[in-house]
Amino acid sequence: MQAIMKTKPEKGFEIKEISEPQITHSNEVKIKIDVASICGTDHHMWVYDQWAQKRLPPAIPFVAGHETGATVVEIGSDVKNIQVGDKVSVECHEADGTCYQCRSDRMHVCRNTKIFGVDKNGIFAEYAVIPELNAWKNDDDLDPALASIQDPLGNAIHTVLPKDNLEDIAGKNVLVTGCGPIGLMSIPVLKMLGAGQVFATAGGNNMQRLNMAKEMGADLVLNAREDGDKIPKIIRDATNGDGIDILLEMSGNTHALSQGLEALTLGGRVSLLGFFSGPITLDINSLMISKAANVYGIAGRRMFQTWQVMRGLLKSKELQNKLKKLITHRVNMSDWEKGMIEIHEKRAIKVVMDPFK
Amino acid sequence: MQAIMKTKPEKGFEIKEISEPQITHSNEVKIKIDVASICGTDHHMWVYDQWAQKRLPPAIPFVAGHETGATVVEIGSDVKNIQVGDKVSVECHEADGTCYQCRSDRMHVCRNTKIFGVDKNGIFAEYAVIPELNAWKNDDDLDPALASIQDPLGNAIHTVLPKDNLEDIAGKNVLVTGCGPIGLMSIPVLKMLGAGQVFATAGGNNMQRLNMAKEMGADLVLNAREDGDKIPKIIRDATNGDGIDILLEMSGNTHALSQGLEALTLGGRVSLLGFFSGPITLDINSLMISKAANVYGIAGRRMFQTWQVMRGLLKSKELQNKLKKLITHRVNMSDWEKGMIEIHEKRAIKVVMDPFK
Amino acid sequence: MQAIMKTKPEKGFEIKEISEPQITHSNEVKIKIDVASICGTDHHMWVYDQWAQKRLPPAIPFVAGHETGATVVEIGSDVKNIQVGDKVSVECHEADGTCYQCRSDRMHVCRNTKIFGVDKNGIFAEYAVIPELNAWKNDDDLDPALASIQDPLGNAIHTVLPKDNLEDIAGKNVLVTGCGPIGLMSIPVLKMLGAGQVFATAGGNNMQRLNMAKEMGADLVLNAREDGDKIPKIIRDATNGDGIDILLEMSGNTHALSQGLEALTLGGRVSLLGFFSGPITLDINSLMISKAANVYGIAGRRMFQTWQVMRGLLKSKELQNKLKKLITHRVNMSDWEKGMIEIHEKRAIKVVMDPFK
Amino acid sequence: MQAIMKTKPEKGFEIKEISEPQITHSNEVKIKIDVASICGTDHHMWVYDQWAQKRLPPAIPFVAGHETGATVVEIGSDVKNIQVGDKVSVECHEADGTCYQCRSDRMHVCRNTKIFGVDKNGIFAEYAVIPELNAWKNDDDLDPALASIQDPLGNAIHTVLPKDNLEDIAGKNVLVTGCGPIGLMSIPVLKMLGAGQVFATAGGNNMQRLNMAKEMGADLVLNAREDGDKIPKIIRDATNGDGIDILLEMSGNTHALSQGLEALTLGGRVSLLGFFSGPITLDINSLMISKAANVYGIAGRRMFQTWQVMRGLLKSKELQNKLKKLITHRVNMSDWEKGMIEIHEKRAIKVVMDPFK
Repeated sequence: MQAIMKTKPEKGFEIKEISEPQITHSNEVKIKIDVASICGTDHHMWVYDQWAQKRLPPAIPFVAGHETGATVVEIGSDVKNIQVGDKVSVECHEADGTCYQCRSDRMHVCRNTKIFGVDKNGIFAEYAVIPELNAWKNDDDLDPALASIQDPLGNAIHTVLPKDNLEDIAGKNVLVTGCGPIGLMSIPVLKMLGAGQVFATAGGNNMQRLNMAKEMGADLVLNAREDGDKIPKIIRDATNGDGIDILLEMSGNTHALSQGLEALTLGGRVSLLGFFSGPITLDINSLMISKAANVYGIAGRRMFQTWQVMRGLLKSKELQNKLKKLITHRVNMSDWEKGMIEIHEKRAIKVVMDPFK
Repeated sequence: MQAIMKTKPEKGFEIKEISEPQITHSNEVKIKIDVASICGTDHHMWVYDQWAQKRLPPAIPFVAGHETGATVVEIGSDVKNIQVGDKVSVECHEADGTCYQCRSDRMHVCRNTKIFGVDKNGIFAEYAVIPELNAWKNDDDLDPALASIQDPLGNAIHTVLPKDNLEDIAGKNVLVTGCGPIGLMSIPVLKMLGAGQVFATAGGNNMQRLNMAKEMGADLVLNAREDGDKIPKIIRDATNGDGIDILLEMSGNTHALSQGLEALTLGGRVSLLGFFSGPITLDINSLMISKAANVYGIAGRRMFQTWQVMRGLLKSKELQNKLKKLITHRVNMSDWEKGMIEIHEKRAIKVVMDPFK
Repeated sequence: MQAIMKTKPEKGFEIKEISEPQITHSNEVKIKIDVASICGTDHHMWVYDQWAQKRLPPAIPFVAGHETGATVVEIGSDVKNIQVGDKVSVECHEADGTCYQCRSDRMHVCRNTKIFGVDKNGIFAEYAVIPELNAWKNDDDLDPALASIQDPLGNAIHTVLPKDNLEDIAGKNVLVTGCGPIGLMSIPVLKMLGAGQVFATAGGNNMQRLNMAKEMGADLVLNAREDGDKIPKIIRDATNGDGIDILLEMSGNTHALSQGLEALTLGGRVSLLGFFSGPITLDINSLMISKAANVYGIAGRRMFQTWQVMRGLLKSKELQNKLKKLITHRVNMSDWEKGMIEIHEKRAIKVVMDPFK
Repeated sequence: MQAIMKTKPEKGFEIKEISEPQITHSNEVKIKIDVASICGTDHHMWVYDQWAQKRLPPAIPFVAGHETGATVVEIGSDVKNIQVGDKVSVECHEADGTCYQCRSDRMHVCRNTKIFGVDKNGIFAEYAVIPELNAWKNDDDLDPALASIQDPLGNAIHTVLPKDNLEDIAGKNVLVTGCGPIGLMSIPVLKMLGAGQVFATAGGNNMQRLNMAKEMGADLVLNAREDGDKIPKIIRDATNGDGIDILLEMSGNTHALSQGLEALTLGGRVSLLGFFSGPITLDINSLMISKAANVYGIAGRRMFQTWQVMRGLLKSKELQNKLKKLITHRVNMSDWEKGMIEIHEKRAIKVVMDPFK
């Protein structure tokens, strides 16, 4: 079969002909890739940035990719709740299942986790083999392109709902700082969960994102370049002086974080998803301690409560239609490089790929 | 001023001319009633049923009513966050503020609570005086008729979201058993909060309610008379065998409760709002214990988290439009008896009253 | 090897000579039984009561027992966090790992669960083979007899702490209704978690249990036969009129449940562990709904948060010493019937068995 | 009566003769001060540091102090749950009761809060008048000196248990960074709540505090000066490689915070109480985001859940005895300056004052 692979410790990917993967453990399933999509992580791997140089060498050469809508074509003898023909997506974190974290409902931060398409073969190929646990059964009628982008959508939902019983969105005012793909996806999710007002900020050099934030349903979109330090006051004025109840930090920008915390109501809640370029300096006294803020670091998606919430939310045609707008480009896997360049040039939001012709 | 009063320990209300209430404590506000609505409790009081016979005598004679949209016309010297001209509704539970429950975020079950229009003068009149804490400031542009029905809407929201951090609605399947006013109101609230599928059951003798449940947005409405014991199976089949995640019991009917619990997924959640006619018999072993059910008794509305959620949700025109459909009758206070009879005959869902001409 | 087996669909167990179990899946471990203990479930199986008649036939003949302190003697090739020589206990619920419940932190109510010693071979033998996930690594220096009774201790802890972040014991007043082994174990656990006052009730025909409740650290032990309906008042008087914050129902007795709920403070919390003899009749209006009670059905132990809490608590020598008092009898496996009869006659609390000589 | 007052915008306090305060609102109570204690805040006020220069001028001149054990000598006509003769302590935050925060169980961060002894007259005097809500009724037999230090003890408990339903201490490993009075108090509280291992770090220049940490019950006390950057490894080695479950940051030291976060297990929990000298620089990517940390800013004490927990915990003589050890100095109010200097020189942990002779 053909596969898009990281073959060398340097910039780039290559298409290679390799043999089909086979089930070797009784709890595995073999899937046929119907659609794949390109994640920001794939872009880091392609660029071969600092993170990639540190993380990838042990696995090279390997098949890239982890976002997919696929069909089960074979199952191992101990597979219990998946059948041949099932439509599935892939949770890309393979957890060990028995460490301290896995045994306490924190499998998404398993300390021995391996990521498909990063630490071992991924899904930019015709077939892949994964454990049953990593195969998430989709509703049969879910568009495979939407099925494929559940990985970043799951990040968005996890940022919105970081824990069980912390779905404090109903009627609350929320600020999303940063309008990359995940930030944008969080906006219609917030609106679906009954958020009061949703504010969004973006850098301002990318009008596509500012416009898309509006289209996703944000009540007020602020241009960080133009509105700058006035943002907390603008938000406070729009919320009866209360400020926002919830901050979703998706930008990895220190100013955005500070402004967001400044706009936060006393006792409010913060999710941190965006990575910063390095250590940051923050007035933690006034912005976290006196503010009685509750701050959650967000990694991956909860396995699998986030997916369960996602299944329910994706029953909404309105949400589906909004998410489709975020799929700005669609190419064949053989043209993967075109898609990658659209992402690199920040012209694309999500790029979806059809299987090799 | 004129007032609709409970004047004698027997069936009925009377309109009386009484003097306007005055502010006597520095933390009180005086309000002018713009709109009032009739609660099921008012109906019990009018009928003078067993509950009423036991509860009301100490307060007779008193002004009935507690659901209202009103305007602040005067404030006491220590009032801090309410101003003359503010549009307000009334939280009808006057808590003592310092008991064990009040000091631990359970003011809605204050052990010394007094209810306006039940234990002391209410708001079926031209004016009323209440503590600042019981005056809930509405958005200025909220229709007073909608402002007035926030009391039952708050019950519905409290049933949906019984605690802080228990807003596990997103993507979940929910069954509402019982389609009285509060059950019906819970349906659009659930849909706003991202529920997956919403099922509703009603007794079947009242097609208005079954039709209204559909109109409120229920995905599947079941007629308890016709579908009977098949209800758990119907629901299980519609939910991939999982059953419902959440049961909102609004009927006070033992069969409905048993069927709802049977349809509940292992580890699911239940809110109990509907009052039963007396002690009930239940297979608690299989329906609660082995099922690992989490069951919440619901009383009133949380003071004031439920109101805060409600303010946010009411910003939605879609929710407003659905709620307006539930206001099936509108009369002048002088014609209160017409409205009461519509409720008594179960032809009305909510009856709203305009001030005395 | 020798094993205590359920060989026929009738009263009794038999010692049989069978071949040692072998690892057949790469994720399994083989354990040598150092100590076993007799559970109430084993007693039901021995008596062959109604429950047993319904549940056991598919598995007969099988090795009984599931409570043990054991040593790992062999591991499969995919075992990751367990080593040969590790001291382990057994979580007796074998979950499928991929159903709706397992994928949402409710593995203890997996809908396809199998129980060792009930649905398949257990551990009243020289060796057993179990999945790595079901092997709970103990601290090396934990007495195997204490290791073995972690199954009921885990039930007790789960009843005390039914959910993540619901450890509302600190400084709270708690009532334990029912002083069987699990009820008794909950008492020192409650004291360790900073409970204010701990009340316990027992039937009154068994002075051993009433005395043991006191020895376990209960502040006040009430004899249900003698104190009867006065219990709620006695408790209310001892708690400044507030009543208990938390009720742990361990008796399966309807009067105990009603009295406990009556003694509960408004907005209090209830865990239901004890099984009732059949459907029960309860005034749910006043005892659950108006009371705004939060009620949790308890099944098994959380996998594995309960075990993690248990590991921490068992570091306390004080707790260890109290638990040792509950081990009233110790016999060799070849004398299992002596132990069983002590349980049957209600003279034993916990019976621990040493390996076949 | 005599009072210790802040009379001028400069260093120092003065004893003045002023008239007794009188009840002016019907919801107030008048208390006689039996014992008072000196808070770190009082020391800042005495020194007149930057914070004091900014905060105090509007209230000068005013009576200092807010920690006390007192007796109610008079009550207003609307006081409901307090009686003359009751023993009380003072919650020093006077909230407005009706703002957004107060109406959502966050009264401790009321946006219009006033603090007794900072923004208005305090309790370093013979009498004080406070609202009923701010009077916390103690158990009658509680030593007034212990009653008085409930203010910092409440801070400690709030840091340990930041929210309802977040009492995840049972069996968990905890690190306390910083052994000032509040850090020290948290140690016996943690042990009472069933913590597994409790680690404590202190600066190392103050052997009294390191020794006291041990005496309070810490399992391992680390000297930050000597152990320095090895602290995370030492802790990880002592916890089976898991690291700590919970970090209580009490030092306001950036290194302590970084080391604590490094030692935190994936998905662990952090409470931040200690104030830093200014903005801090932190590798938030690895220490909060990838770590999936849950971080809570802690301000004051919850009103009044923290007090309710504290009442229950203080029933333990063992806790009382440990807390008494922290009262290192006791003086008469007329000798307040001696006590203040002991604090200033860091020779005292808590200084308790008896009423003017």
